[in-house]
This record gives sequence, structure tokens and C-alpha cells, in this order.
Amino acid sequence: MAYLNDNYLKLQAGYLFPEIARRVHEYCEANPDAAKRLIRCGIGDVTEPLPAAAIAAMHKAVDELSVRETFRGYGHEQGYEFLRSKIAEFDYRKRGVEIADDEIFLSDGSKCDCGHVLDILGDQNKIAITDPVYPVYVDTNVMAGHTGEAKANGRYEGIVYLPCNAENDFVPQPPQEHVDLVYLCFPNNPTGAVASRAQLVRWIDYAHKHDAILLYDAAYEGYISDPEIPHSIFEIPGAHDCAIEFRSFSKTGGFTGVRCGFTVMPKSLLARTDDGRSLQLHPLWHRRWSTKANGVSYPVQRGAEALYSAEGQAQVRALIEHYMGNARILGDAAKRAGLGVFGGVNAPYVWVRTPDGLTSWQMFDRMLRDLNVVITPGSGFGSEGEGYIRISAFNSRANADEVARRLQTLNR
Amino acid sequence: MAYLNDNYLKLQAGYLFPEIARRVHEYCEANPDAAKRLIRCGIGDVTEPLPAAAIAAMHKAVDELSVRETFRGYGHEQGYEFLRSKIAEFDYRKRGVEIADDEIFLSDGSKCDCGHVLDILGDQNKIAITDPVYPVYVDTNVMAGHTGEAKANGRYEGIVYLPCNAENDFVPQPPQEHVDLVYLCFPNNPTGAVASRAQLVRWIDYAHKHDAILLYDAAYEGYISDPEIPHSIFEIPGAHDCAIEFRSFSKTGGFTGVRCGFTVMPKSLLARTDDGRSLQLHPLWHRRWSTKANGVSYPVQRGAEALYSAEGQAQVRALIEHYMGNARILGDAAKRAGLGVFGGVNAPYVWVRTPDGLTSWQMFDRMLRDLNVVITPGSGFGSEGEGYIRISAFNSRANADEVARRLQTLNR
Repeated sequence: MAYLNDNYLKLQAGYLFPEIARRVHEYCEANPDAAKRLIRCGIGDVTEPLPAAAIAAMHKAVDELSVRETFRGYGHEQGYEFLRSKIAEFDYRKRGVEIADDEIFLSDGSKCDCGHVLDILGDQNKIAITDPVYPVYVDTNVMAGHTGEAKANGRYEGIVYLPCNAENDFVPQPPQEHVDLVYLCFPNNPTGAVASRAQLVRWIDYAHKHDAILLYDAAYEGYISDPEIPHSIFEIPGAHDCAIEFRSFSKTGGFTGVRCGFTVMPKSLLARTDDGRSLQLHPLWHRRWSTKANGVSYPVQRGAEALYSAEGQAQVRALIEHYMGNARILGDAAKRAGLGVFGGVNAPYVWVRTPDGLTSWQMFDRMLRDLNVVITPGSGFGSEGEGYIRISAFNSRANADEVARRLQTLNR
Repeated sequence: MAYLNDNYLKLQAGYLFPEIARRVHEYCEANPDAAKRLIRCGIGDVTEPLPAAAIAAMHKAVDELSVRETFRGYGHEQGYEFLRSKIAEFDYRKRGVEIADDEIFLSDGSKCDCGHVLDILGDQNKIAITDPVYPVYVDTNVMAGHTGEAKANGRYEGIVYLPCNAENDFVPQPPQEHVDLVYLCFPNNPTGAVASRAQLVRWIDYAHKHDAILLYDAAYEGYISDPEIPHSIFEIPGAHDCAIEFRSFSKTGGFTGVRCGFTVMPKSLLARTDDGRSLQLHPLWHRRWSTKANGVSYPVQRGAEALYSAEGQAQVRALIEHYMGNARILGDAAKRAGLGVFGGVNAPYVWVRTPDGLTSWQMFDRMLRDLNVVITPGSGFGSEGEGYIRISAFNSRANADEVARRLQTLNR
């Protein structure tokens, strides 16, 4: 009989969002009236319509496909030049960061990229992950066989965990020990924390000292309002030879259902072969895309391109201001309710300490039952998330206002 | 320094299509007049506009995304029910094949799926691949470390190659030796061969005897006109516990630039753990998609759904008839030119024996130089493809007619 990949069997069964869905479903079945007033601030999914510029561009692209003369079949596996050049120009070179067009690789989302990047990296690498963390980084490493079994606290053998908590403002220091790959995500999901330039410089110094690679997830960079906070790891000198960056149009252009993201793979980034040679990763990443993909849907790429037009940029700014307005309303309301509040200033997530020594899931149940509001239990993101909840700012203004009102009635 | 995946270094540098592009470019630079009459019958990319039903559905879906009330963010990672149910009904149940909706997994293309399926399979599996073959099956196994180094003839150590040639009508018999995974593609790219029911029964028997899994690529099933030829491996009794099928909208709906395909992963398919237990692959595949993807673009899924409407089905049939009309014209012309012709009857590829003992690349150069026609050298698909060329029927009728005319002037 053919063999399956045994590593999948190490994955813990209770994946976060299905378990939330199960509890919400059970509660709503038993309480149909309460179900009608349910407001979801759980999953980090956008709620507002696509920017008009993207809509117009996608319509135009679809029309092009309806006519032989303008029809397009297979595009470049790494993405069309029209979009790669816009990204490199607007997101990097206009901000003073040197990135070449062909260092941009388009994909159908940064979640996918975070997993796929392991394709080109060796199984020998020692991996560090923050705690709490976006579960995809952990699970894709489990699947790839880079860990041992899960322990009772949910952590996997073989991974170096970097605790993020109130003591370090949810930004970890580099570890004392050696690791080869470090996943960093700023603005952070789930804590909403951001890393300062000085903190990122320490990580780049660590990477240089240890010949490590930083896997930098900047999917939420559009939410940064503080001008002192870097949007890209490549704003830090020396990052071009020790970092890969992941970006997404999901939370800027509202593309969670449209699907487009990208990686920045600098040509100056080297990695080591088994026999000790140092080689560029860029050609491996290029080959990975040529062999395993056929590029992002053409109308989607045109939609993403339109986000860089003058109208598109203004519309993206308006979307982000809308969600960040929600974040302020929710964060202020949680403070007024006497809760410990973090994040929510340069990120669309408000990270809240549970009151009265409640566990994350106890607080989840209380908010579901008493407020009819769905949040995400912090413990679902890692053991250091225990005692916290994540409130997502992705919602209508009316819903954010209503959640803020209900928070004042929280039974303490 | 972080380690790279050394297996990538085993990949042979001269990937087929870039080498074709290089030779065509060089020739056109040197011969600008000839360049103007160049006709491309190389890469298997569609040329005709998208079906009107898909265009209308994609416009409608884009409009839905422009309004808050109908906006959709993240969809199911495995695809929307509206499309999975249409596929299961029209492509399977209406043809008498029992497949459940949730055995269909949507993706952005079957090329991607052919690579991703290795995620859930063990590295211990012994793999068999036909020769000639779609290079993706081989290269993704090289990348995953399932092979040794490439040999002088381009074959990799550790893979069992199944020769397909005129002697076996380009359909291999099961091997004498044991293998765990077998890649089969019918209608075949590149040879255009189809497998009869009796031939597929022999493969299912082999799979049962050896507890092997057939990875069945049916991306070209829409081109089958012979009613005796199976469209799906699941038409063969017993296939549900030993096969995975890959399908695509690329060559039916002309979705090469729109991007949508799917796998059929039966729940009755089991594979073996390292310690000898037999487990379903379905939950692993489901978990793979939940963790590493966020589903196919919503407008794309609506476009694919529209291909199952009455108008959509008629439009797809018209597209296929157009391309198969080209295949007949090209195949007949090659025969009239005195060449040995295979395929092109139930598949959009005409597989032609080179005359005068020419190698595939010599014939490529002759056709480029003398006819200004680009084809694909058969040797690019494997050592058994040496002495053949592949002519693609994906073209306008005018171009197919012109290539047919030029073939009569072939210098022999």
C-alpha cells in the first residue's frame, strides 16, 4: 500500500476556527433569538466592498478575455510584469527600498506563500516561531516533518518558541540559542503589536551573526499609522541578505475572496547546501513557481494593479481608515469596560486580557452567551495567548459601535 | 547559514519551454521577415475567447463584490459548495460515477494539484512515470527528494519509467516490479493517446494487487469523442479505493489564464502509515487545503460554475470542436506530407514521427527555419519522445490551415 505523510498525524485535531464555528453553531441552535443579534469579531476577514478601481479593472480584464484579439491564456508563472513592477515601485522603491521587479513573486495569497516557502528550504533548518502565532507557520512545519510530536501544552518538539507577552510588549528579543529560520509577523496577528526599527535592527544583527533567514510576514503593513514604524523588513539595512517578505492584498484591497499576495525574494539572499556551498535562493523560488504553478488569475492581477492608481490608493486608504476607526472604538470600549487592552493602534486586531482570571475559552463562552459577540480565544494562537482574546476590527461601523455598547454591559 | 533544499539542484537546467523560447527568439532576431509569418504550435495554450456564459458569470460575481450586502471574503478553502456540487453532478454522477460533493477539491489548476498531492504522500513511495511525460510529474518528485541524480539520458535514479511508443500504442502495460504510485495521463499529453477501458482495468488490477495508488490526470478528457473511451478513472470498477483524479477547466472552458482545476479524492482511498495502519487520505487532503490555501478566487469559481449551464455546456462543446477541427486538419496534413502520425483524434495534440532519422530538436529547427512553424520537440518530454514532435491544435482555424499548407512544402 502506498504510504501517506505521517507528519500530518502529528497535527492537533482541534483546529482553532472549526472549534469556534462548532461552539457558535451549538449556541445558536439552542438560542435562536440570541442568534439573531450575534455579531462576529472572530475571524480576520474583511467586510466592506472591493475598491471601485479594482472592480472596474476586473470588469475590463474579463471583457478582454471575451475577445480573441485581447484574450490571454497562460501568463508568467511568477506574475505579470505590469503588476510586479507596480509593487516594486510603489511598495518599495518609492519608500526608498531597493527591490527589483523580478524579486517580486505573485501568488494567490500570503497564507499559501508562508507554506510554499518551505519547498525551497532544507529540512535540517532549526526553526523559531513566536508564541502566540498565526497557526499556519507552525502547521506547515509540522506537515513538512520539521517537528516532533505535540506536547501537552500544544507546543511541538523541535521548534524554538519565542514568548510574546505584556512584559516584552509582544515583541520578542532574539533568542540566545542558534536557529536558522525565524518567522516574524508585524503588525502582528494576533496581538496587534508592531516592531520598532531598533527591534528589527536587533533581529537583523541576529540573522547576520547566525547566518539565519527571517521570514517576515508584513500582511498588515497597510495598517501602520505611526511614521516611525517600518512597513517592510527591507527598510532595515542588511535585510536584503537575510530576509524574505510576505505581503498580501487581502487586508489592503479587501482581496480575501479575490486572492492575491506576493513574496519578495532578494537576489542577494543566500542559503547553504548540504556540502557547504552558498547559493542564491532566488532561482530556486523561480523554479518552484515555474514547475508548480501557472500564475495568478489574469483579472485578479489587473484588480491588484488598479489598487496602485491614484483612485485605488485613495480607496485603499479609506478602507483602512474605516477598519482602524473600528479598532479605536473597540479598543476604547474594552478599556472603559476595565479590560487590559493591547494592539489596535497600528493593526486591525485588539488584544485584550481576560478579566477575573478567566481562560481564553471561558471568556469566549461568556462573550458569546452574555454579549452575543464572537471573538477569538488567544490560547488558540499558542500557550502564551492563554488569558487573552483577539477582537477583530473587520466589521461594519454599526457592528463595531454595537459591540462597543455591549462591552459596557460585560458581567464582571 | 540556513539550508536550502538540495534536491532542487538535481533538476536539469534546460527546461523545455524556455529552451524553445530561446531558439525562437534567436531565429526571429536574425530573420525579422520570417518572424512575421511565425506560427506557434508549441505550448498547449488555448487561443479562443472565454465562453460567453463564463464571461457573464464573472462580471456578475465582480459586481457582487462591489456591494456590501453581496460581498464575499474568505470562501471555503476546498471551494464553494455551488461549484463542487455541479462538478460532482455533471462530470460524475450524471455519467453514472458515484462521487460525493465533498470529494471534489477546487484549486487554481491541475498543474498545481499534480505537485501538491505529494504533500500528503510519504517519501518512501516507489514512483512510476510514463516516458514521454508531462515534465511536472517528474520535476515535483525531484524537488521532493524522491529521486537520485539525473542520468546522461535525462532520466532520474529511483524512478521507474514506463516507455510509451508506437509498439504499445503509447499506452504502457503495468510493470512487472512493485511500485506504490503511478502517474497516468489520458488523453495523453504529449502523445495524444487514449487508454481503453480494458487497459485501465489492467491498471486497476495492478493497483489492487500492489496496493498502489494511480494519480490519474484527466485534464484533456473533454476532447474524447470515442464513446468507448472512459473520461474518468472512476468509470472503472474498483478505482475508488486506488485512484486520485486531476481535472482542469483550462482546456474545456479555456481557463488557462483564469485558473481553475480540481482533484477528486475518494473517501474510500486508504494509504499506509509508517507503522502499518491504513488511513483515509481524504482528511489529510482536506487539512492540507485548510492550512495552505484560502480557496480559489470567487469570480473564477462563478465562471467555472457557468460552464455547467446549458449555454455554457454548448459553448464548451463548440470550443472543443473548434480545436479538434484543427487537430484533424493538422494530422491529415502531416499524413499527406508522408509523416507518421499518432494522436489528434481524442486529444488536441498530434504526435508526429520525425522523418529521415532526424532528432526531435533537428526537426524543431527545420520546421522553424523552413516552415516558420514552432512545435515542441518530443525529446523534451522524455528519452522515449526522441524522434517525435508534438503539434498543438490550440490555434485559430486560419493558423491551422496555414500550418497544414506549409507542411506540404516540408523539405524531405
